[in-house]
Amino acid sequence: MKKDLIAKLQDGNSNILSNLISAVENGHAGKQYCELYPYSHDTVRVGITGPPGAGKSTLINQLITLIRNENKSVGIISVDPTSPFSGGAILGDRVRMNQHALDPDVFIRSMGSRGEMGGLARMTHQVADIIASSGKDIILVETIGVGQAEAEIIQNVDMTVVVLVPESGDDIQFMKSGPVEYGDLFVVNKADREGSSRVAAILRDYVSDAFEGQGYTPEILLSTATEGEGTSEIYKQCLGFINYLKESGNLKLRRRNQYLSRVRNNVRDELERRFWTENITGDIAELISDDDLRTYSPSETAQRLIPKEK
Amino acid sequence: MKKDLIAKLQDGNSNILSNLISAVENGHAGKQYCELYPYSHDTVRVGITGPPGAGKSTLINQLITLIRNENKSVGIISVDPTSPFSGGAILGDRVRMNQHALDPDVFIRSMGSRGEMGGLARMTHQVADIIASSGKDIILVETIGVGQAEAEIIQNVDMTVVVLVPESGDDIQFMKSGPVEYGDLFVVNKADREGSSRVAAILRDYVSDAFEGQGYTPEILLSTATEGEGTSEIYKQCLGFINYLKESGNLKLRRRNQYLSRVRNNVRDELERRFWTENITGDIAELISDDDLRTYSPSETAQRLIPKEK
Repeated sequence: MKKDLIAKLQDGNSNILSNLISAVENGHAGKQYCELYPYSHDTVRVGITGPPGAGKSTLINQLITLIRNENKSVGIISVDPTSPFSGGAILGDRVRMNQHALDPDVFIRSMGSRGEMGGLARMTHQVADIIASSGKDIILVETIGVGQAEAEIIQNVDMTVVVLVPESGDDIQFMKSGPVEYGDLFVVNKADREGSSRVAAILRDYVSDAFEGQGYTPEILLSTATEGEGTSEIYKQCLGFINYLKESGNLKLRRRNQYLSRVRNNVRDELERRFWTENITGDIAELISDDDLRTYSPSETAQRLIPKEK
Repeated sequence: MKKDLIAKLQDGNSNILSNLISAVENGHAGKQYCELYPYSHDTVRVGITGPPGAGKSTLINQLITLIRNENKSVGIISVDPTSPFSGGAILGDRVRMNQHALDPDVFIRSMGSRGEMGGLARMTHQVADIIASSGKDIILVETIGVGQAEAEIIQNVDMTVVVLVPESGDDIQFMKSGPVEYGDLFVVNKADREGSSRVAAILRDYVSDAFEGQGYTPEILLSTATEGEGTSEIYKQCLGFINYLKESGNLKLRRRNQYLSRVRNNVRDELERRFWTENITGDIAELISDDDLRTYSPSETAQRLIPKEK
């Protein structure tokens, strides 16, 4: 049964893959997920992150072509509600993207942008594991990269490409506490517009500062993805960086740290699940009076609900 | 001692307030925070949210003046790293903002933009409680409103003003899963620029749809905050909406739901804290081999670490 599932998945059966992902998203296929997990390690995972309108999906589209030209298979996970891959953005984009829709070696999945705290990130990791177990060579994960769930997502890929535009200059300070911090490669897209060299210069200052004394400094590339300009170089740099990660032992290290962080998050979820089913019977709202609310801080009330430490 | 602290705080001693907030942020004043909490309920809390560059801090500056003209006191909490209130943005903004820096009835505090999952939001709530207990009439909370911590922050104010710009048209779809969803009042700032009427129309469509059959429909206002144009109307609408919340009983309901959500979050934090101190001795990394990592999914490993359910 287990071998069967893996065989069918790795045979490129997109329907099974799709249904399995839906089942896991709905909490109905935990066992199957765990069976597939050991087969998920050979796939390279690349995050493509940047603000809405930076041209991430156009770039991804070009990367898909480059990946397919090498006869490799690819999965795309989009966590950006404005992306044409998620059904957002304008019609033109969606049509352009769909050139790959009939290719059985291209699997595209979008994730809802909502969910409980942490739920979206954890679900995205599991979906990536399942797509990986189907034998795809590369997975591209598209996110806007702002916010904690987003950060948790791009911290769990092998490498991250940050896509900016010539107008991003003023926003880089802002994005330092987000996507920019996780960048292994920077792309200034729409580089035919004014300001691209300024943004590239700001990024060069940033990386030479932030990566001083480290084994590598992220490259900064210019592109005009709509014209396919600069995209081969981006793909080449991605492969080069992945190779560097493998050879330096950093890939193993990154994946180990990611695993530990995912375990911690799962522990938190499970502790919470058990607490609310075992310790609190009935509705929490009925346990807390208006007078409690005015008198005890939320942390005091939480302490009161949790059984005393031994 | 308790009365002393409250008396000093409510006497307008900004140094004590500042030091107390720092102590709470560093985890050193949990007891004092709990003592102050019951005094935190009379303050109105207004979230000011929107993308970087929308003019939130300029608007806040104008609101401070309007609030002070009524001889009310005000606290500002900035969770936006690009805000001049947080020391970001450009010098001109910072100078403009500082016109209120010497006013003892204006207290400004910025929050770091980082922290563990959830940590920033929970800390922001506590800082707001402390500032409220000092007797400020109004607290304005400035955030960019994208991301889960940000969402948790603007879900814990009495009302939220969403500030957009004429160029925001294409981003509204994107922001629906963020700031726009929590808007009780919408402001199209920099309205002298092209596109403001289009954005206002998009927002009108959105609110008439999203708020159909509810007790109220959020207003959509135009402003040019740098010139003070439209800002009195914004302030007036805020006061009007708060009144509506009070009279309809919705304020009590909102605060109750917020309290329950804060309790749930505190329970989660505390369960996690106890688990890692009581159940796991030594480094989690040493408990997990490379073979485990390749074989067991993070959820399976988490289950293995947690003692069996009885």
